[in-house]
Amino acid sequence: MLTRSRTTHTWRVTVPIVAATSDRIPDFSRPDGLVTAVAQDAATRQVLMVAHMNREAWEETLATGRAVYYSRSRGRLWRKGEESGNIQQVHTAYVDCDGDAVLLVVDQVGGAACHEGYASCFFRQVSPEGLKIVFERVFDPDVVYGKNPQAPPAAGTTGEKP
Amino acid sequence: MLTRSRTTHTWRVTVPIVAATSDRIPDFSRPDGLVTAVAQDAATRQVLMVAHMNREAWEETLATGRAVYYSRSRGRLWRKGEESGNIQQVHTAYVDCDGDAVLLVVDQVGGAACHEGYASCFFRQVSPEGLKIVFERVFDPDVVYGKNPQAPPAAGTTGEKP
Repeated sequence: MLTRSRTTHTWRVTVPIVAATSDRIPDFSRPDGLVTAVAQDAATRQVLMVAHMNREAWEETLATGRAVYYSRSRGRLWRKGEESGNIQQVHTAYVDCDGDAVLLVVDQVGGAACHEGYASCFFRQVSPEGLKIVFERVFDPDVVYGKNPQAPPAAGTTGEKP
Repeated sequence: MLTRSRTTHTWRVTVPIVAATSDRIPDFSRPDGLVTAVAQDAATRQVLMVAHMNREAWEETLATGRAVYYSRSRGRLWRKGEESGNIQQVHTAYVDCDGDAVLLVVDQVGGAACHEGYASCFFRQVSPEGLKIVFERVFDPDVVYGKNPQAPPAAGTTGEKP
């Protein structure tokens, strides 16, 4: 839950200052009603994925302490890990300066956030020779999802797999 | 530049595997022609900011090794640090699984990515009592930008300041 704290977060200043709270933060006023959500691993600090949230996803995330996104391709809430079991327990949540992006620092159950079986969706590094896969798979998507993981997801889905 | 390497990146597997490169990755085929871009500090691993890139911004970023975004509010390229001097030297760049988000691991010149003077745009943490500022300011925006930093940026600008 959000009230938990870890001393391993040495990069977080430990003397918080209470600031104004507002119903407008995060700001869901864009036409699609979404904000960008970034998930970062609490232990490794690896950036795990980028997705989106509507107000309902945000509020359920805070209420349950489990990451819930909004799937643009499916037009519904996407409770991360609902099929694979690889849920994200939210450790801390941040809102950016203008309120249209949020950052979740999470415990990634199963060690992999990506539907292709990697810890992070950002498993391909740009190099002068092209894209290089610079991480190793944590799980076999064939086993977890029981289908062909090589089929590219539709544009904008952020590799959404339940 | 992107060919540079640091041994401090212990979370990066050091035996890359060459994967297919494609002109479709990143995928700029969405109607607005943009992908989401996340910047992470190479030294602290702190998530600094979320912004957007069109193809031109992406290509200039790779060619120059300096982060260039696309400002949706101004409808033009946004060379990060062009006014403040707080540029981002790109250490490594990653593309996510479905190609609609990129991650830049950067050296943040000046120690602050946020136009409000904080290291990260995510300086407000969600707590049961509301939002709390949990970092200290690195610079005074009044001095750097010479205007009132409290004026909220327009929705969707991601706190864009040159």
